[in-house]
Amino acid sequence: MRTWELSVPLDEASPTPLFVQIARALAEDIRRGRLKPGAPLPGSRALAATLRVHRNTILAAYQELEAQGWISTVPARGTFVSSALPDVELTAPAHSARARSLDFVGFPLESPLESREPEEFPRGALVLVGGTPDVRLLPVEVLARAWRRAFKLGGQRLLDYAGPQGHPRLRTALANMLASVRGLAATPESLLVTRGSQGALYLAARALVRPGERVAVEALGYRPAWEALRSVGAQLVPVPVDGEGIRVDRLEAVGVRQGLRAVYLTPHHQYPTTVTLSPARRLALLAWARAAGVAIIEDDYDHEFHYDGRPVLPLASADRDNVVIYVGTLSKVLAPGLRVGFLFAPLPFIQRAASIRAIVDRQGDLVAEYALAELLEEGELQRHVRKMRGIYLSRRDALVEALRGELPGGLEFSVPAGGMTLWAHCAPGLDAAAWVERAQEAGVWFSHGGQYTFDGQPFPAVRLGFASLKESELREAVRRMARLRPRR
Amino acid sequence: MRTWELSVPLDEASPTPLFVQIARALAEDIRRGRLKPGAPLPGSRALAATLRVHRNTILAAYQELEAQGWISTVPARGTFVSSALPDVELTAPAHSARARSLDFVGFPLESPLESREPEEFPRGALVLVGGTPDVRLLPVEVLARAWRRAFKLGGQRLLDYAGPQGHPRLRTALANMLASVRGLAATPESLLVTRGSQGALYLAARALVRPGERVAVEALGYRPAWEALRSVGAQLVPVPVDGEGIRVDRLEAVGVRQGLRAVYLTPHHQYPTTVTLSPARRLALLAWARAAGVAIIEDDYDHEFHYDGRPVLPLASADRDNVVIYVGTLSKVLAPGLRVGFLFAPLPFIQRAASIRAIVDRQGDLVAEYALAELLEEGELQRHVRKMRGIYLSRRDALVEALRGELPGGLEFSVPAGGMTLWAHCAPGLDAAAWVERAQEAGVWFSHGGQYTFDGQPFPAVRLGFASLKESELREAVRRMARLRPRR
Repeated sequence: MRTWELSVPLDEASPTPLFVQIARALAEDIRRGRLKPGAPLPGSRALAATLRVHRNTILAAYQELEAQGWISTVPARGTFVSSALPDVELTAPAHSARARSLDFVGFPLESPLESREPEEFPRGALVLVGGTPDVRLLPVEVLARAWRRAFKLGGQRLLDYAGPQGHPRLRTALANMLASVRGLAATPESLLVTRGSQGALYLAARALVRPGERVAVEALGYRPAWEALRSVGAQLVPVPVDGEGIRVDRLEAVGVRQGLRAVYLTPHHQYPTTVTLSPARRLALLAWARAAGVAIIEDDYDHEFHYDGRPVLPLASADRDNVVIYVGTLSKVLAPGLRVGFLFAPLPFIQRAASIRAIVDRQGDLVAEYALAELLEEGELQRHVRKMRGIYLSRRDALVEALRGELPGGLEFSVPAGGMTLWAHCAPGLDAAAWVERAQEAGVWFSHGGQYTFDGQPFPAVRLGFASLKESELREAVRRMARLRPRR
Repeated sequence: MRTWELSVPLDEASPTPLFVQIARALAEDIRRGRLKPGAPLPGSRALAATLRVHRNTILAAYQELEAQGWISTVPARGTFVSSALPDVELTAPAHSARARSLDFVGFPLESPLESREPEEFPRGALVLVGGTPDVRLLPVEVLARAWRRAFKLGGQRLLDYAGPQGHPRLRTALANMLASVRGLAATPESLLVTRGSQGALYLAARALVRPGERVAVEALGYRPAWEALRSVGAQLVPVPVDGEGIRVDRLEAVGVRQGLRAVYLTPHHQYPTTVTLSPARRLALLAWARAAGVAIIEDDYDHEFHYDGRPVLPLASADRDNVVIYVGTLSKVLAPGLRVGFLFAPLPFIQRAASIRAIVDRQGDLVAEYALAELLEEGELQRHVRKMRGIYLSRRDALVEALRGELPGGLEFSVPAGGMTLWAHCAPGLDAAAWVERAQEAGVWFSHGGQYTFDGQPFPAVRLGFASLKESELREAVRRMARLRPRR
C-alpha cells in the first residue's frame, strides 16, 4: 500500500460529525483520482490511529462510503475503492456531468403556461394582493403539537400507502362540520380530501370536462380556476356579474345557444367583486342546472369569514337534484401552505375524481390529514377562525376608514360583509393599472380590475386585501396610495 | 323570557370540553325549534349559575355559537338566536339536507378510471405484492423530530404561499446528493419537487405529451405510469423487454415506423423483471434518442437498493444532449406515505412542468420538504437506507432459500442484484394467475405476470416483494405458496 493521507483536516468543533467529514474527504480523494479504483484502503484500526479518532468513527465512515458505492469490503481481504464508481467524471472527464449546460432540451417542447400573480414580494412591502391570511398570526405552536401527536398516535399507519380519498378521520370531521354549520348532507364517503382548493378545482375539472366542452365562468372572475379548466381542454364562456352576482339569465341564454357542460362560480363572496349571489338567483340557477343537466362547481373558498352576522348557506345545501360539486378549503382558515381542501359531491362523482387523484399523485398527506382531523374535532380550528374573524373585522374597518379619509371621492365601494378583500370602483379618470404600477415603486402592492377581466381589458376598479396587514400598516398603505394616485 | 332549560346533561368526565358540550346542546335546541330565531338567551351569569359552571365557560360556549352563526350578540341588549340560521332544515324541513341521497348525479358523468392494485389487505395477510418498504421499520421518531424542528425553525414561512418548484433547501440537498452519488449534473434550479414518483410521472407526461402523440413503454411494465401517460392522451406503444432490459432495436424500428414523442423506462431494475439495462443498450438508446429528438423518461424508483456492491449510474448521468427526464423518489427510501419525489431535467422542461404544477395543486408541502432537507443534510436518510439495505438483503436471501427449498423446479429465477422484489418464471403447466388466486384464500398475496402485460394476457411468472416481510414470514408465505400450487 502506498503512503496516503487525508487531504482535508478534521474539525472537531464542526456540527458535521467526524465520520461524515472523513467519508467526504475520502470520497473527494477518490473523485480526484488520488485514490484509484481497486486501490486498497487502510484498515480501520490503522486509520483510526493515524487520524487519532475512535475506531468506530472510521467504521461509520467506511459504512457510509460503502452505502454510497465509493468503496467495497471483501470479507477477510479488506476494503477497496470500488471498481465501478458512482461518478462519471473518472470515466468520462471530457464530458463531466457537472459542467453540462441545462439551458436547452434535446427534444421539441412547448413553453411554460402563463404565470400567475407573483409569489414573492420585496422585503418590507405592504401587500394588499389577494385574500390571504396574515401568516404572522398563524398558530404554529398548535400545528406543531398536532403534527407531533399525529406521528405519535398514528405512527406507521400514516406513513404507508393508502387510498386516494383521504384519511377517514378527517373526512368524518369535515362531514360533521359541513352538516352542522353549512347545512350540507355530507358523509365521509361523499368527500374527497384534496391539495387545497386548487387541487379540488383541478380534479373536478379533470373528472368532468372533455376537451372542447364549454364551461361558463364569472367574468370578472378567478383566473387560477380558469387555468385549471382550460388545462383539461374546456372552452370557457364568460358570463357577466353585477351587484347580485352572476347573471343567471345570461347563463341560461348561453346554455340554450351553445350548450354547456358546467358553470363555475363563487356565490358566497363573488371573486373579485365580493357580492353575495342573491336568493332569487340561487333558486333560478339550481332550477336551470337541473333542467339542463349542467354541473355547478361551487367554490366556497372563504365560507368562514363573514362579519355582519348573516352566514349564507352554500348552494349545495339547497341542491336536491345532485347538480352541485362543492369545493372547500382549510387553507384560508388555517394556513395557505397546508394545502388541504376538499370536494363534496354525489358519490359517483367522488369515485371518479378519486380514481383520477390516484393517477395524479396517488394519495394525500395522511399525517397532515390526521393532525387536521384532531384540530377540527377539538374545536381548535374553529377557535382560531373566531379569533381571526375578530381581527379581520377590525382590519376591514380600518381600511374602510382610511380610504374614506385619504381618498374621498377617489373610490366608490360597499363595505364587504365578509371575505378578506375590498373591491372598489375608481372615480372617472383614475387609471387603476397605472396606479398599481406607481404604488409598487413605493412598496405597496394591490390589484386592479384588469387582472380579473376575461379578455385582459382594463377595468376601473381595485382589489384590496385587508387580512394580512395590521391596521397601522393598512393606514400607511392607503396614505401612499393616495399620494401616488395618478392624475390625468 | 320563557323558562328554558338545557336538554342535554353535562358530563364533567367527558374529553369534550364543557363549553363545547353546552354549545352543542344549545345548537341542538335551536335546530329542533325549541329556541326560535330571534329568541333571547339567558345572560352568561344567569346561565352559569343555573348550570353550575364558571361564567367563562358560558362565554366560551356563546363565542363558539356566535362563530358558527347560531346566535348573535347585540351590544347593551343581549344575546339572541340568529334570525338567519346556518341550517336549512328550519326553513325547508321537507327537503332536509341530511336525508338526501348521494347515489346519483344530476348531469352526465363518465365512469371512474380503472383501479389499481388493492390498497388494503386483510388483517394478518402475508403481503408480497409490490416493492414496498416494511412500514414496521419506519423511523417514526426520527421523522417526528424532523417535523418538530421544521415547525420550530421554519415557522410561519413554511405555512405561506410559495413557488411551485419546492423548498430551495430540499432542492439544494437533493442536488448535492444526486451530484455526489448518482453522477447527475443537478442544480437546485434543475429540480422540481413532486408528490412522489407518481406525481413526477404525471407532471412529466402532462408537460410533454399532446393528445394522440405516441409514447413507447416497456411491456412487461409499470401500469401506473401507463395510466399517467394515457390520462394526458398518449397513445402507448409496447416494446418488449428481455434479459438486458428494453429492446432498443425494436424501439428504433417503432420510432422509424410510427414516430415517437417519448419513451418511458426503468433502466436500473426493470419493472417488473428486475433486470438492469445493459451498457451497450444504454449507449444505443441515448444515441438514438438524440438523433430522433425523442425524450427519455427515466424512472429510477429504487436507486438506493442494490446488494451486490455495483451501483449502476442513471442514464441521465451520461446524457450530454439533454434528452433525459429523470424521475426519482424518497418514498421507497423512507416512507410511501410521505409522497416526496422529484424531476431532474433541463431547465426549460422544469419551468414548463412547474407551471403545470401551479395549476394542479399550486405548491408542495413546505414543512415536509424542509424536514426532509434536514434529514438529507444530516445523513439521517442515508443511514436509514444503509440499515434497510442490510435488512432487505437478508430478506432477499431468505426468500431465495425458501423458494429453492419449498418449490424446487417450480420456479426459475435469477437472484435480484437489487430492488425489493424477485421475478420468477413458472415451470410449464403452472398457472400463475390461478396460483395467486388460491394463495389469497390462504392469506398470501403476490402478483402474477399477467398483471404487467400490455394486453392483460397471462404471463407465466410471479413477482414476489421481499422487503416488507420478516424472514420467518417469508418462509411461511413460501410454505403456503408451495402447498397451494395448482397442479394440472
